[in-house]
Amino acid sequence: MAKRLIPTLNRVLVEKIIPPSKTSAGILLPEKSPQLNSGKVIAVGPGLRDREGKVIPVGVKEGDTVLLPEYGGSQIKLDDKEYHLYRDEDILGTLHD
Amino acid sequence: MAKRLIPTLNRVLVEKIIPPSKTSAGILLPEKSPQLNSGKVIAVGPGLRDREGKVIPVGVKEGDTVLLPEYGGSQIKLDDKEYHLYRDEDILGTLHD
Amino acid sequence: MAKRLIPTLNRVLVEKIIPPSKTSAGILLPEKSPQLNSGKVIAVGPGLRDREGKVIPVGVKEGDTVLLPEYGGSQIKLDDKEYHLYRDEDILGTLHD
Amino acid sequence: MAKRLIPTLNRVLVEKIIPPSKTSAGILLPEKSPQLNSGKVIAVGPGLRDREGKVIPVGVKEGDTVLLPEYGGSQIKLDDKEYHLYRDEDILGTLHD
Amino acid sequence: MAKRLIPTLNRVLVEKIIPPSKTSAGILLPEKSPQLNSGKVIAVGPGLRDREGKVIPVGVKEGDTVLLPEYGGSQIKLDDKEYHLYRDEDILGTLHD
Amino acid sequence: MAKRLIPTLNRVLVEKIIPPSKTSAGILLPEKSPQLNSGKVIAVGPGLRDREGKVIPVGVKEGDTVLLPEYGGSQIKLDDKEYHLYRDEDILGTLHD
Amino acid sequence: MAKRLIPTLNRVLVEKIIPPSKTSAGILLPEKSPQLNSGKVIAVGPGLRDREGKVIPVGVKEGDTVLLPEYGGSQIKLDDKEYHLYRDEDILGTLHD
Repeated sequence: MAKRLIPTLNRVLVEKIIPPSKTSAGILLPEKSPQLNSGKVIAVGPGLRDREGKVIPVGVKEGDTVLLPEYGGSQIKLDDKEYHLYRDEDILGTLHD
Repeated sequence: MAKRLIPTLNRVLVEKIIPPSKTSAGILLPEKSPQLNSGKVIAVGPGLRDREGKVIPVGVKEGDTVLLPEYGGSQIKLDDKEYHLYRDEDILGTLHD
Repeated sequence: MAKRLIPTLNRVLVEKIIPPSKTSAGILLPEKSPQLNSGKVIAVGPGLRDREGKVIPVGVKEGDTVLLPEYGGSQIKLDDKEYHLYRDEDILGTLHD
Repeated sequence: MAKRLIPTLNRVLVEKIIPPSKTSAGILLPEKSPQLNSGKVIAVGPGLRDREGKVIPVGVKEGDTVLLPEYGGSQIKLDDKEYHLYRDEDILGTLHD
Repeated sequence: MAKRLIPTLNRVLVEKIIPPSKTSAGILLPEKSPQLNSGKVIAVGPGLRDREGKVIPVGVKEGDTVLLPEYGGSQIKLDDKEYHLYRDEDILGTLHD
Repeated sequence: MAKRLIPTLNRVLVEKIIPPSKTSAGILLPEKSPQLNSGKVIAVGPGLRDREGKVIPVGVKEGDTVLLPEYGGSQIKLDDKEYHLYRDEDILGTLHD
Repeated sequence: MAKRLIPTLNRVLVEKIIPPSKTSAGILLPEKSPQLNSGKVIAVGPGLRDREGKVIPVGVKEGDTVLLPEYGGSQIKLDDKEYHLYRDEDILGTLHD
């Protein structure tokens, strides 16, 4: 029975992308391989409210690949899997191929 | 004569969920079992007021299972039972099966 | 000639409730007896003003039993009796039987 | 030629009330006599302006007996007499017999 | 060729009043003579703008005798004469005979 | 497969301009050669929202040469190339020939 | 090929005025000669936006002689010449003969 988290306010639930240290063919990648602190958006909150009470929707959506700040975010565990929660304004950008 | 607390503003009264260290059949769970800092919402305040004076309702409701931050919250005791008070914006999310 | 204090803004004058260390029948209560940091509201200020200049009434009223934060509040003496002044937003909740 | 001070903004000029250490009949009062940090309002400023530019009148008036915070206030001297200046929001309440 | 300074925003140019240490008849004044940290307003800025963009005029005017805070203000020199610049809200009050 | 970053809010992706230490003819430039902390704007976010919820567009645009502050900005790597992310308000100005 | 900087927001580009240590006739000025921390405005940004999104024009203009604060401002170099960038609100006043 898997637990599902619905974040509050402008919080974003992210699963970090761990870069492979080997290629799929088993070749070890050199240490200098570009490492990007990125993640996949799993769930987003409804957004904060502005001064007039209107909800400001969160700037990223489920499924987005996002660039994360080096520090910050709260680590949480759901069903033995590790996730991170960020405030929407702390996410640096979205990544596209 | 049990005491009942009605929180002020956007405060949320939470009873923490302590994960069982044994299964109901008496089998000891390993220490690495996923531990989630969660709780059950017992009571919520009426909410803060925005700049125009309108009340912003609290984002969680009685009975919700909530994900709590690692730090923060005020510990209080009511009739020998331990509870925690959080500001609505400090609650990380709601948990669903 | 007793002095009476009318608090300013959203200040709340509270008389702390000291839990009895003995029952009325004279039986000493054990030390682990639940201790609640509570008080009785003696007087409240008129409330703060919001950005439009309208007064926001104080969330508690004279006679309420309130749950107080562990720290904070200014201790004052009126006619040799000890009271505490709290800002309305620092009061954690109201207690009801 | 006595100097008169008109405070700016929401400032309040207060003359502290020093409790008598003897009664008028010359009896020394015990040290534990209730000491209240109070003062008499000598002059008040016109008040701060809110976001719309309207003046918010000061909450106390000339002649009021006020309860003062333990710390804060600027000590000033006018014609060899000592006064204190407080911001209106730092005054804890008004005292009445 | 004397330089003239027009302060920006809500800044106030003040020339401090140094109390005479002798009377005009040459009698030395005792050290305990009342010392007031006061000054004469030389020039004032146009004032700050509120949230709606309207200018809030400075609360003191050229020629006013003002009571100054013990600390703060920037010391500047114009044509070998010493002045101080204060933010309008830091001026404690105006002095009148 | 090159990665492309779309910054969030008022963030600006900048590629720093490294001044040549030699001229194209191979002549070593003296150390005192003017060094400007400048960069080329690669991508900009959609902008922050003001209190009314309207988007405030970012003050610089793709292709601009910008003057950067000495400190600040987050270093990131995309496809082994180094970039910096700045908040729009931290960019000091735009440079023109 | 001279570089030109257009400051962002309410930034002001200033060239500091260094007081001559000799008169034009070659006479050395005494050290106590009045030193004013002043500068000439070279370029100004378009101004900040207020809460309604309207631009607040910068309070000084190109060519103004300004009084600068003792600390603050970012030193930058353009074509081997030294300039300083200030936020419009940090400029103390304008100087006139």
